[in-house]
Amino acid sequence: MAEALRIGIAGLGTVGASVARVLRDKSAELTRQCGREIVVTAVSARDRSRDRGVDLGGAKWFDDPIELAEKADIDVFVELIGGDEGAARSCVSAALDAGRHVVTANKALLAKHGVALAEVAEKKGVLLNYEAAVAGGIPVIKTMREAMAGNSVNRVFGILNGTCNYILTRMEAEGLTFEACLKDAQRLGYAEADPTFDIEGNDTAHKLAILTSLAFGTRIASDDIYLEGISNITQADIRAAGELGYRIKLLGVAQRTESGIEQRVHPTMVPTASVIAQVHGVTNAVAIETDILGELLLSGPGAGGNATASAVVGDIADIAKSRPGFQHGPVFGRPAKELRPYKKAQMRSHAGGYFIRLTVHDRTGVFAAIAKRMADNDISLESIVQHANGSDGATQKTVILVTHETTEAAVRKAVDGVTKDGHLTDKPQVIRIERAG
Amino acid sequence: MAEALRIGIAGLGTVGASVARVLRDKSAELTRQCGREIVVTAVSARDRSRDRGVDLGGAKWFDDPIELAEKADIDVFVELIGGDEGAARSCVSAALDAGRHVVTANKALLAKHGVALAEVAEKKGVLLNYEAAVAGGIPVIKTMREAMAGNSVNRVFGILNGTCNYILTRMEAEGLTFEACLKDAQRLGYAEADPTFDIEGNDTAHKLAILTSLAFGTRIASDDIYLEGISNITQADIRAAGELGYRIKLLGVAQRTESGIEQRVHPTMVPTASVIAQVHGVTNAVAIETDILGELLLSGPGAGGNATASAVVGDIADIAKSRPGFQHGPVFGRPAKELRPYKKAQMRSHAGGYFIRLTVHDRTGVFAAIAKRMADNDISLESIVQHANGSDGATQKTVILVTHETTEAAVRKAVDGVTKDGHLTDKPQVIRIERAG
Repeated sequence: MAEALRIGIAGLGTVGASVARVLRDKSAELTRQCGREIVVTAVSARDRSRDRGVDLGGAKWFDDPIELAEKADIDVFVELIGGDEGAARSCVSAALDAGRHVVTANKALLAKHGVALAEVAEKKGVLLNYEAAVAGGIPVIKTMREAMAGNSVNRVFGILNGTCNYILTRMEAEGLTFEACLKDAQRLGYAEADPTFDIEGNDTAHKLAILTSLAFGTRIASDDIYLEGISNITQADIRAAGELGYRIKLLGVAQRTESGIEQRVHPTMVPTASVIAQVHGVTNAVAIETDILGELLLSGPGAGGNATASAVVGDIADIAKSRPGFQHGPVFGRPAKELRPYKKAQMRSHAGGYFIRLTVHDRTGVFAAIAKRMADNDISLESIVQHANGSDGATQKTVILVTHETTEAAVRKAVDGVTKDGHLTDKPQVIRIERAG
Repeated sequence: MAEALRIGIAGLGTVGASVARVLRDKSAELTRQCGREIVVTAVSARDRSRDRGVDLGGAKWFDDPIELAEKADIDVFVELIGGDEGAARSCVSAALDAGRHVVTANKALLAKHGVALAEVAEKKGVLLNYEAAVAGGIPVIKTMREAMAGNSVNRVFGILNGTCNYILTRMEAEGLTFEACLKDAQRLGYAEADPTFDIEGNDTAHKLAILTSLAFGTRIASDDIYLEGISNITQADIRAAGELGYRIKLLGVAQRTESGIEQRVHPTMVPTASVIAQVHGVTNAVAIETDILGELLLSGPGAGGNATASAVVGDIADIAKSRPGFQHGPVFGRPAKELRPYKKAQMRSHAGGYFIRLTVHDRTGVFAAIAKRMADNDISLESIVQHANGSDGATQKTVILVTHETTEAAVRKAVDGVTKDGHLTDKPQVIRIERAG
């Protein structure tokens, strides 16, 4: 049998401790699968004394993760510190420079420095694996990087943030407000004390940026993503969506268009009868559309210590099965040096259906004015729902429009026009509709 | 750059021609992804003169696929002939004996001879890849063999036959009979002239047998699978399922139980709100439940030339990225020699919920008799629906029972009892309910 594969883990939080536990508890089975033993020989974390529920006795302790990355007797450096700069970036760089394979779950680091790190890994002939960085336990990186060889991707989209999906699921199931669901998510540990990064879509954007690069062979461009969070989604939207046969999900979408690549994160109406509409709670899902394969959908746990650890262990096992002298596939599917510059499609050229919810004064001529603004912008309507707000004698009405395919520019112009007409009593709500199988 | 990888394709039907086309059309992209060229250097098929819509000019023609497997200048032998014996088996054996990597889409061959072939491949140090053999374009083999390293599988189940799912989908959507939908499926090329193999579950069983081996590290035992097809599913079942919040799917299920491993293929009630219930038409889906990762679901095209070719090309690309001297992971996840004997759980110990539809004489005491038979067998009921059949004056009633978790043995005994009581006017219908997320 080949020599044992030596692992160094930097960061022993929930995921790090879980990885160490799985590698120990499943040692015999992993050896059988990989043809060699996998042993944790070095670890690093901030607090040496904390009880992590796993015996790390055999591993050498490093106070400094960079020292571990550079000097420990390891074959693989596992980075589970997190953050796009600081210790995480320094120690991943140090490990690659020292010719060690790296496994990381760090989406922020890859979204910002992934291409540069991939260039180093490929120059050094080592692997940089990051299955856990996108959609937790779902093997979407392996699928796109390996299984879809030869496929040209047209669109990749998904539910990539469990916090948002949990909030939207509970809002729909229980009729609660966004704020109430967010509080519950925080109480249950599904949302951070400062939830901005999740609910405003930044976390989804980081993951989407990585998928975009894998899908289209482009350099990662996470700053060029159109971003809209879920904090302004109301019960009125969710109810109207349901009545029209849709469900609201926060999606990250990357799509090839004539004018470039669209990367967008926003609340989206998906058909209630689609597979992705049934992905509830903290579960994640990714759909990939290609020219040869067609549409593939993967769903599963997108976060949590164990699911994330499963992806990290899968990455380690792939390295264990390889041998010195093995030339690996490139980090982002194509050689990092050959990744094309990302050409951004303008959001105003986005083509698709739209849901528009308007709260208007209940007076004569309002509806005609709205209809005219739509017609003036060549927007054809699939359905129109109009109903009084509240009890008898209400002075407001709600008008809900669902458009056939049109453009973002046309919808913005039409809605601006309606706003200027002075008939609205509240901010207009616009939600994009996404095709989904 | 490394030397080109030389491919020999035996079998140039829809899939074979599609593989040749993808390898040619996507040559530049595949080279970029794999770091070397992939070239079809040899082919074999029955009819040399047929136009397959792809230029095979550069490839050497072999009339005999075994000669191709043994003597052609190739690194990888791609078997797309089909069948569990004859030419397919002979040429795959010949290629492995000659130390060539093999890629195959042949589920029947693997279900019958997979372990023996894997032993040869592992002894020779070559790869035997078969992603296309199960669920077409869905990368379930790669997911189970690689991404889930270290996970212990509790259950794997799926919609593995597009023909059956197409028929059940249309029966539900359009209220048509099984026979009418089967005819349409035949007309559209989704079903064979002799559809027995698909609709009676044998095709699903072959695929399930492979997944079972990957899931549990056991030797393939495709003859030991409990089999029930969809030909006796009626509109009455589909309507009742809908009313109770279920949808009927033909599932293949492999599950670890205390008394062994259950392998079963049968029509199944899954909750309408589950993800797998939204998998319509010829689409396939596989769900895998493990101790670490949790539940993962993959859905996508399970058949068709292009989707199958995509999986074959992915398998070839994996070989292209490897290099001589690379020691590969084992064919079925664990070394073939170490696969454990399959220990079959008895079907009568199967535990789960049941749907029971009884057509009975409309007379006093019938319902009490049915209730007594259930109680006598410790079957507790979740719901009971009873309604008259047809118009006023009908002399028959339908009684539909949904049980809480019970055993197959109890249900069989209770239904036998009801039958002996003489109250039934038609064959009783029993459909198992499957948990699904």
